[in-house]
This record gives sequence, C-alpha cells and structure tokens, in this order.
Amino acid sequence: MSTTPRRRAAKAIASPWLAAGARGDQREKKRQAVLQTAARLFNERGFHATSLDDIAERLHVSKPTLYYYVKSKDDILLECVRTALATMQQGIAEVRQQGGRALDQLRACMRSYAAIVMDDFGQCVIRIGEDPLPPPLRKELRRLKAGIDHEFRRLVTEGMAEGSLQPCDPKLAAFMLAGALSWIGRWYRPDGAMTPEQIADQGIALLLGGVLAPVPSPPSSAPRRRAPRKSTP
Amino acid sequence: MSTTPRRRAAKAIASPWLAAGARGDQREKKRQAVLQTAARLFNERGFHATSLDDIAERLHVSKPTLYYYVKSKDDILLECVRTALATMQQGIAEVRQQGGRALDQLRACMRSYAAIVMDDFGQCVIRIGEDPLPPPLRKELRRLKAGIDHEFRRLVTEGMAEGSLQPCDPKLAAFMLAGALSWIGRWYRPDGAMTPEQIADQGIALLLGGVLAPVPSPPSSAPRRRAPRKSTP
Repeated sequence: MSTTPRRRAAKAIASPWLAAGARGDQREKKRQAVLQTAARLFNERGFHATSLDDIAERLHVSKPTLYYYVKSKDDILLECVRTALATMQQGIAEVRQQGGRALDQLRACMRSYAAIVMDDFGQCVIRIGEDPLPPPLRKELRRLKAGIDHEFRRLVTEGMAEGSLQPCDPKLAAFMLAGALSWIGRWYRPDGAMTPEQIADQGIALLLGGVLAPVPSPPSSAPRRRAPRKSTP
Repeated sequence: MSTTPRRRAAKAIASPWLAAGARGDQREKKRQAVLQTAARLFNERGFHATSLDDIAERLHVSKPTLYYYVKSKDDILLECVRTALATMQQGIAEVRQQGGRALDQLRACMRSYAAIVMDDFGQCVIRIGEDPLPPPLRKELRRLKAGIDHEFRRLVTEGMAEGSLQPCDPKLAAFMLAGALSWIGRWYRPDGAMTPEQIADQGIALLLGGVLAPVPSPPSSAPRRRAPRKSTP
C-alpha cells in the first residue's frame, strides 16, 4: 500500500514464476473457493452430513490438496461464519459513514443484513449456528453478533429520537427486526419464486410498517391497545 | 379409554405393587424429566457440548438408568423437537377450533408460538435446528414445520380477505412473522429483564403493526414507495 516504486525506463523481463504477491493472491482465491463450496454444501446437506471428501469432490481436488488451504471441517465453518459477520460489520460501518436519518440508516443496514443471510456464508451463520464450534470460538462469535445487535438497537433508539419510529423498547424491536431478517437465511432457497432483492425489499417494508410512527392522523393503527371503540364499524 | 369397569360393592384390596397403568405413568413422567433436563442442558451448553453423562449427573441417576428411557442423544433431541412441534400444532388446532376473525386467530397463534419457542423444547428446535438429525428424520420435521408455516399463511390470506391485514405476499408475510417469533428462541434468556408474556405481547404488537391495514387515513406510512412529495416538510 505505501510502496511507491520508482518508474524505470527499461522494461522488466517477465518471469515465468508468479511473483510472491500474485502467488499469495492465487492461494487466497483458491482458499475462498474452498470456503464458498463448503458453505454451499453445508447449507444444502447440513454441516454434519457434509464430509471433507464431499467438498474435495465438488472442487475436483484431492483431500490432501484441501488441507493446504484449511485445517478441518470445524475450521472451515469458523471461517465461513467469520467472513459473514465481517461482511455484516463492514456493511454497517459503511452505512454509518454515509450518515443521514436514522430510519434511512436502519433501512440500509437491514438491506445489507438481508443480503448477507441469503448468501452462502450468511446462511451458514443462521442454519448451522454456533453449536458445532468449540466454546472459546463460540464466545468470539457471540461478541461479534452482539456488536451487530447493538448497532440495530442504536439506530432504533435514534429513530425514536428523530420521530421516525414509534415509541418502543429498542432492544426488543431490534431483536424482532434482525430476527425476522435472520430467519430468511433458514427458509431462503436460490430457486425460489422471489429474488433476494424482492425478499429484502418487501420483507423490510413489512417489518418497518410495524415500527414506523403513524404519520399524520391519530395513531389508531396500534393493534387493540386503548383503541377508541367506534359505535359503528 | 373405552373400558367401562362395572362398579362392585366390595372394596378392592390395595396392592403394594403399582398397577400397570400407574407404572406406565411413572415411566412416562420420568422419561419426560429426562427429556426436559436434556433440553435445558442442550440450550445452556449446546447440543454437541452436552453428553449423556451430563444429563445423568443433572438427574442424579446413572447412565444405564438413562438408557431405560431413551436410546441415544440423537433420540433425545428428536423427541424434544417432536414434542415442541406437536405442542405448536395443538396450539394452532385449538385456535382454529375457537374460530373468530382471522386477525384474532393469527394473534392467538403467534402468542402460542412465541410461548413455545421460549420453553425448553421449543428452544431446542430453534437453537439446534435439524442439522444433527439423520436425513429421514429431518424430512419428517420439515413436514411438520411446513404444516405450521402453512397455517400462518392461511391466516394471513384470510386476514387480507376480511380486510384486517394490508395487501401483501402471504407467504413472505407469514415467514417474516414466524421468523421474528422463532428468533426469540435464539436470544431469550429466562433471567432476562422481560417475562415471556411481555416479550410475546410487545413483540407481536410490533410485528402486527407492519401488516395491519392502515385504518382511516391514506396509507402514507408505506416507506418511500411512490411517496407523494410534499412541497414543504
């Protein structure tokens, strides 16, 4: 990043070997392919029903080749889950940087979150959960997840303060919103009738309807709570 | 059930042995205690981290005693999940029998569902999922779950027809509602600040707000969709 190589007039002779950097890139690319393939198999068949042999077979490589990129099936799962959570955190950070109304930020975060739970790594987080992971790693993942929960909660609180969200318990509301989105990762099928974008857009609209402040008229849409009874229906 | 023993004048001599029926009851009671204890341990520590020894220890019995009631850890999980799903189905059947408006039925079903995902068996369904189970049993559980999804979808469709719910994709809406409720089973802690009833009531109110038809005024609460721009804020 900080290297600024001097320009030279003479052209360098092309080496038939990949430069160290390019070799590293290739390795990382292949490692990603291993993770992605494994994630998809976990989601298709279940974590327990998937073996390293299955993953190697799908990639047309031998099992020893696989071990060059990953340590074990548990290691793969951990990396899949870490990748998904890192992408979620990155999405949230980008939304935060852009700023704007809390409601718009919340909507953007929800969209980013929904997209991730429908991808291969995100589905691993939701479908397999942390149960197969050893306790110290489970703890780490809980910490990462708590950070994401916290961000949703902050945005709900700010949304209430700016008047775009109705008064509610921000913790519960954040859990309900993120929960409904998370669950998409359980039922979403790539061959389903709706695209991920449609699911996200319509799903988020349905969820936000529940937390949006009723705009101009008296808030008679709150379900059965001190609802002023009309004499005629 | 269909036995109608003739009444006799003379009192029967009390036997020091339990009658066959009572013995069966005792066995079933103990079997339930095994399942409940196991479910709680699974939820506390994770399915993989819990051994049959842990379960036996918590119950103050030996492992061989445990085998009198259950076959294996997988068998326990299956029974826990089956129990939860059966309770859900029963709750739904009761709501259906009572009849009434679709919206009221939906609310009652959601309340029943929420209560179950916060109990020991329901948490197993949500937290552990079907992954550790062998494929044929997974299939059976999916069938049971699909039946519950279907019921939610039916009530959303009927709610739209009776005008109490806003027009939406009933399949997606049902998934979002049941999904948010299901996720409660992931984050709920018995020692948390809210009671299960508070979580269910407030959570359901937040969720339904999103699907209730906006009552008297034009539906300006739909987020950013063809929103008629006002010249002044």
